[in-house]
Amino acid sequence: MKEDGIGPGQVIRRTRDGALEYQRDELTVEEPLEIRIGNKTVATTMRTPGHDEELAAGFLLSDGIIRSTDKIEKFSRPAPARNRENIIEVHLAPDVKVRLNSTQRFGTISSSCGLCGKESIEAIRQNFPPIKSEPIRIDIETLLSLPDRLRAEQSDFARTGGIHAAGIFDFSGKALVVREDIGRHNSVDKAIGRAFLGGKLPLDRHALLVSGRASFEIMQKALAAGIAIVASVSAPSALAMEFARESNQTLVGFLRPPSFNIYSHVERVILD
Amino acid sequence: MKEDGIGPGQVIRRTRDGALEYQRDELTVEEPLEIRIGNKTVATTMRTPGHDEELAAGFLLSDGIIRSTDKIEKFSRPAPARNRENIIEVHLAPDVKVRLNSTQRFGTISSSCGLCGKESIEAIRQNFPPIKSEPIRIDIETLLSLPDRLRAEQSDFARTGGIHAAGIFDFSGKALVVREDIGRHNSVDKAIGRAFLGGKLPLDRHALLVSGRASFEIMQKALAAGIAIVASVSAPSALAMEFARESNQTLVGFLRPPSFNIYSHVERVILD
Repeated sequence: MKEDGIGPGQVIRRTRDGALEYQRDELTVEEPLEIRIGNKTVATTMRTPGHDEELAAGFLLSDGIIRSTDKIEKFSRPAPARNRENIIEVHLAPDVKVRLNSTQRFGTISSSCGLCGKESIEAIRQNFPPIKSEPIRIDIETLLSLPDRLRAEQSDFARTGGIHAAGIFDFSGKALVVREDIGRHNSVDKAIGRAFLGGKLPLDRHALLVSGRASFEIMQKALAAGIAIVASVSAPSALAMEFARESNQTLVGFLRPPSFNIYSHVERVILD
Repeated sequence: MKEDGIGPGQVIRRTRDGALEYQRDELTVEEPLEIRIGNKTVATTMRTPGHDEELAAGFLLSDGIIRSTDKIEKFSRPAPARNRENIIEVHLAPDVKVRLNSTQRFGTISSSCGLCGKESIEAIRQNFPPIKSEPIRIDIETLLSLPDRLRAEQSDFARTGGIHAAGIFDFSGKALVVREDIGRHNSVDKAIGRAFLGGKLPLDRHALLVSGRASFEIMQKALAAGIAIVASVSAPSALAMEFARESNQTLVGFLRPPSFNIYSHVERVILD
């Protein structure tokens, strides 16, 4: 028992009937990750350890720093270094030049400085073209099945409720990849990074489902991977909707079967 | 009707009985905000417009850049400039020197580079001492009332479900401030920034309730404001719990009346 009345690995639980009991705590691990290009820091994020290469690849892709996997020579950890498991180094191919200017180092919203939301969309769109219009559609029953399919792929960690999940599914509902992280953006970077490293891009015949909200940056990451349909179990922002409409992305919100909302490009969903 | 089948301001809703109908969309506004000290950019964040001065003040406080309001001379918008409403300039008092080194510019987790979570806590703790131990306690009925009190103070925006809320309450349950934002960290920065600018710090006789998860960075912001009790309707991370234990903060998770968990310093809660 520690001096604060709760021992290591313990939590005091008040149950629905008002009883108090000690339980084992089962909490999501959160540790910093520093992403470097060579020995230069480009971002630091609080993440759930694991799939760090995918996280770095997804981040660099959606930030517009790299576009194809042949630009990446290898990943490494600094050695010797303390906490090397919290640093990942991306080594680019010898002929690759990236401009890491001071604004870019702020991450994905760097291009927004002094911009309004609409101009932020334009700035992203200079890097990433809209999704191509093709006559491909997802069936409403498949769409409605995605939350269950996401949960089925989630790990035990998910039972803490403190972790976000992102899954990429094909239009038959088959999961290409599901990733979890304490950070909403990180879970998407990991899922997209996995698909990117696996040579699966563009994902224009796929849907991304996120366990939380759909914000501007989620839509940006989806566009970087060429994802045609983005679904969220919670609300999108106004800017996410605007982004989706202009990027030819179908945006589904509040996907809580049997109900949901469609905010853009309904033509990709077979509703009857 | 736009070419994507959904008109401006419209959303297609599938109801629980399977019917399809058009509804008016009511989405949270999300716009970039660039925070400057003088004319130097220190952070850019996607936020819900409003209370920008509080957001900037709360961010600078919890980042350890300023400690007292007398360091702030005034706030301004750049003029003339496009999108000036998305830029806020903080003007420091003439005698104030801040070191804005390159790592600091990454935000609150800058000090984590190459650190592990435990060292991240130590780095923060060099800037902010733990909460003082005083014999003050919150009653369990007051604690259980906080989620309803938070909801009562929330605006209509909250009905979109896509917005986070943070409220600071005294130990009688009275709200000192409630703020909302599409960003979880921003809602806390705004609430703390309001209290900071109002000369209310330290808040060691107050509780912070957040609508989402309690992560490391939320605990850090609370500590910067001297907040003794942090409650979350969702899960904390393992690092948040560790931070709370070492900072003498009471951490409550899954606060969903009548049940909740206590992860640290139970002595501040009157349980019977």
